[in-house]
Amino acid sequence: MQLRSFLLSGQGWPYLLVPLIPLAIVLDLIGASAIAIFFVSAGGVIPTAALMGRATEELAHRSGPGIGGLLNVTFGNAPEIIIALFALNAGLHEVVKASLIGSILGNILLVLGASMFVGGLGRDRQLFDRTAASAQSAMLLLAAVALVMPAIFELIAGNGLPLPGDEIRDYPSDVEHLSLAVALVLMATYCAGLLFSLKTHRDLFNPDHAAGSEPGTNDEGGEPWTIKKSIVMLAIAGVAVGVMSEILVGSISEAAEGVGLSEFFIGVIVVAIVGNAAEHWVAVLVARKDKMDLAVNISIGSSAQIALFAAPLLVLCSFFIGPHPMALVFNGFEVGAVILAVMIANHVTNEGESTWFEGLQLLAVYVVLGLTFLFAGT
Amino acid sequence: MQLRSFLLSGQGWPYLLVPLIPLAIVLDLIGASAIAIFFVSAGGVIPTAALMGRATEELAHRSGPGIGGLLNVTFGNAPEIIIALFALNAGLHEVVKASLIGSILGNILLVLGASMFVGGLGRDRQLFDRTAASAQSAMLLLAAVALVMPAIFELIAGNGLPLPGDEIRDYPSDVEHLSLAVALVLMATYCAGLLFSLKTHRDLFNPDHAAGSEPGTNDEGGEPWTIKKSIVMLAIAGVAVGVMSEILVGSISEAAEGVGLSEFFIGVIVVAIVGNAAEHWVAVLVARKDKMDLAVNISIGSSAQIALFAAPLLVLCSFFIGPHPMALVFNGFEVGAVILAVMIANHVTNEGESTWFEGLQLLAVYVVLGLTFLFAGT
Amino acid sequence: MQLRSFLLSGQGWPYLLVPLIPLAIVLDLIGASAIAIFFVSAGGVIPTAALMGRATEELAHRSGPGIGGLLNVTFGNAPEIIIALFALNAGLHEVVKASLIGSILGNILLVLGASMFVGGLGRDRQLFDRTAASAQSAMLLLAAVALVMPAIFELIAGNGLPLPGDEIRDYPSDVEHLSLAVALVLMATYCAGLLFSLKTHRDLFNPDHAAGSEPGTNDEGGEPWTIKKSIVMLAIAGVAVGVMSEILVGSISEAAEGVGLSEFFIGVIVVAIVGNAAEHWVAVLVARKDKMDLAVNISIGSSAQIALFAAPLLVLCSFFIGPHPMALVFNGFEVGAVILAVMIANHVTNEGESTWFEGLQLLAVYVVLGLTFLFAGT
Repeated sequence: MQLRSFLLSGQGWPYLLVPLIPLAIVLDLIGASAIAIFFVSAGGVIPTAALMGRATEELAHRSGPGIGGLLNVTFGNAPEIIIALFALNAGLHEVVKASLIGSILGNILLVLGASMFVGGLGRDRQLFDRTAASAQSAMLLLAAVALVMPAIFELIAGNGLPLPGDEIRDYPSDVEHLSLAVALVLMATYCAGLLFSLKTHRDLFNPDHAAGSEPGTNDEGGEPWTIKKSIVMLAIAGVAVGVMSEILVGSISEAAEGVGLSEFFIGVIVVAIVGNAAEHWVAVLVARKDKMDLAVNISIGSSAQIALFAAPLLVLCSFFIGPHPMALVFNGFEVGAVILAVMIANHVTNEGESTWFEGLQLLAVYVVLGLTFLFAGT
Repeated sequence: MQLRSFLLSGQGWPYLLVPLIPLAIVLDLIGASAIAIFFVSAGGVIPTAALMGRATEELAHRSGPGIGGLLNVTFGNAPEIIIALFALNAGLHEVVKASLIGSILGNILLVLGASMFVGGLGRDRQLFDRTAASAQSAMLLLAAVALVMPAIFELIAGNGLPLPGDEIRDYPSDVEHLSLAVALVLMATYCAGLLFSLKTHRDLFNPDHAAGSEPGTNDEGGEPWTIKKSIVMLAIAGVAVGVMSEILVGSISEAAEGVGLSEFFIGVIVVAIVGNAAEHWVAVLVARKDKMDLAVNISIGSSAQIALFAAPLLVLCSFFIGPHPMALVFNGFEVGAVILAVMIANHVTNEGESTWFEGLQLLAVYVVLGLTFLFAGT
Repeated sequence: MQLRSFLLSGQGWPYLLVPLIPLAIVLDLIGASAIAIFFVSAGGVIPTAALMGRATEELAHRSGPGIGGLLNVTFGNAPEIIIALFALNAGLHEVVKASLIGSILGNILLVLGASMFVGGLGRDRQLFDRTAASAQSAMLLLAAVALVMPAIFELIAGNGLPLPGDEIRDYPSDVEHLSLAVALVLMATYCAGLLFSLKTHRDLFNPDHAAGSEPGTNDEGGEPWTIKKSIVMLAIAGVAVGVMSEILVGSISEAAEGVGLSEFFIGVIVVAIVGNAAEHWVAVLVARKDKMDLAVNISIGSSAQIALFAAPLLVLCSFFIGPHPMALVFNGFEVGAVILAVMIANHVTNEGESTWFEGLQLLAVYVVLGLTFLFAGT
């Protein structure tokens, strides 16, 4: 009875997809069609990512605000990073980069848009703290510079940008070294940002810590987990995400061909949504409860984390994993979309207030980008 | 006596140009030089557009705020759309696109700039509501995405952008379908925007409805029109705009060659100014009276309407009118100018205040763009 | 004793570098290695620029706010302009343009970043007046349009942008004339801006004139200079800057080759920092004293002055000095970097407040740009 009400709650629905996990494994073992494997394993990622998020939160709750905050932000995008590491290993550099950009776009446009739309329905306007939001969207401006300059570098050097149809592209070592140097700057800034948000300006991001950090747990009335249980669950979730990711990544190329979509579209839209699904749902839920500070924090903060932590981490890892280092050179769609999305994020956070129509506009931008990406692959 | 004072008033001066209407028809019939026909018919558009605006306002005044607002925004850019439809029919796709971009630029830079400059002279600063202004400049960000992504699409697909010297260019059907899909998203968002501004957030845009919606009528002391008179006048104005537009469009190619200007320059500067002249004058007048809310609303709102309603409508119509569908692929000047103008619009509306120098800067940007367009054609 | 404490003060340290001035002259006369000449003369520019700044301030102080303000802004970037004039004469157009962009980037990112970082350490947040800051960053938007449109013009005309490895490039006369016309618009706007900041809206920029305009003089307890002494010192400083500039510019090509850096990197990073060093130090000092209004004014105001006064002045001069007129066509790195930097400047000034982390992010952007420029030259 309690299980049933949990499964039908806002926090619990991802676990309805648990049966997809063994199904994906079986389909993979019996060599089913790549399309079936892809979509079932994509569905299977969602509950494992949700469990990972839950376990991280419980552990963070037990660890006090300092370490807890660190855990929360470090593991916040762990599922996306795990999927990307498997894709890196399989040499699918363009899928990795597409999923990074897709996560940034998805957070700014789809998640924040849906939050503002759903939260704004029936309300005149919703308010959030401009200072915290602006500090995070400023990180996106830095990210935009870091993600765009190597592309300009290659345009001028004459090698051009990768095409949406590419799977992997070996750039000269100078731009690989530039990418590495830029990645180190981004990670150093990210670490300074942790110092900022967890230490010197903690109050800015946690005006109301108890309510803010566990949007679901208290509301659903669940009991807090012990540290031991949290760590075991985190480990189980990590392994499960890994298994699902390997199956997912192994089927991408064939599945893309099968359904007639490009790997670029799969990476930038499908993989990006799957990796963030559980977490995104939380943003919409809290927005509906008029906690827009938290919704903006999740969406803009998550996109900043992808850009300043996940992307440089994957560049570093690419020097050890996969066929050759991955340069931070994005294709033209990705460069254009990320600049425009960052402009939009800055506009939206500058105001400190939102309406349903503003949310709808963000969703419309996401649809326009999605349509362009869809036509790009055909 | 009353007629004379009306003609010399801020609202009445366009009607001084009425004699140009029959003159344009006569010049066209006797086959005068294209240059003469072009400039006389361009002048003839101004009073017909002014009459159209007046009749719409009177009708809106009679219809109550809901329907009235709908009428006002729907017919607000009717003259531009009618001119563009005739140009579409004549196969002048590049002139159509140039006049769309020119209207957006003209509203953001020329109209708002002149309003802020004239309004700010002798005043320390002028204030306007940031929330309403921001909601409209957010629409411009969506428009920027929609107007830029198809250009990136064609740059990557290898067909390139149209050149300023082109008259029409037949793009592959994939980008035509992409344009159609993007146009439908824009129109759906525009309809949602009507719901927003006319229904759920009506107060935001009409804080003081009686004073705001009829800047001229009351001030000039004219009697309100009956519904019948309004509809008859609207019909007469519509036919007159159509006749002038057909003559104007028919002379563009030859006139451009005659005066040594490119069709691109004619479209982006001359046609855009002519189609908006009467309405723009109103913005400057109300700014001088320190009603900056209304001036910002007219200029930014009008540019958003061009982007989200007129542009997609013309894409839709191009599937039925003219030689082949018109793709939303703009040339490099248009893409660059519209991105920069949208950035500027966002900056300006974010502040919620203006000075004469800010107006002068917007005018300077318009001049720089105009100079670039002028040199582009030679 | 007093001299010693002055030399070790925030205002006095540049004069420790005075011995580099005669050393540079000697090295140049005996034909030492270009690398030595370059770095010694670069160091020698710093005290001469500092003296020039001090003499201007003293003269301004004696002349009353109107003329004084005019003197301050006109001579504010005199050292950069003098260096650029010598480079123009030597035909190093790309170095001139690189140093202009480098000054804009350096002011927005390095100076403002260091000010916000150093000023923000140990403080929760620092506040500054949004209205004055926004008026200046709006000038940067105009500058961005003026610096970008000629590049689009040449991209479309098919001649392409200059490459980072170029020394000088002769563009067709149409884009030279376009550059001239744009330069005249910028200078006219700049003059209007002087009217704005020195006359109609003087209070906006000098809320506390006595304290604001002389950050160093009073604090260090030095005696005010007489008008005669100020003018003599200004003349001496001008001649010294000229001598150092000629030596510096004469050694750039060979020194760049010697140290294995591109002339582009030398221009955009090294020359830009040297020309602004003394003045920049002041911005950081006042930021530490929590006078953020002044720090923002120095950094954003100085970058706006470079764009709207120094750049067009050099275009005008290029019609009389050097091999052929200099077109306002920047290379791809410069165009990309300046657009992104202007976006960042607008974001930062829109808020009206800063933290150490925001400063660090600006510094990180500067490092990312610097890395890209460094790799571009190799």
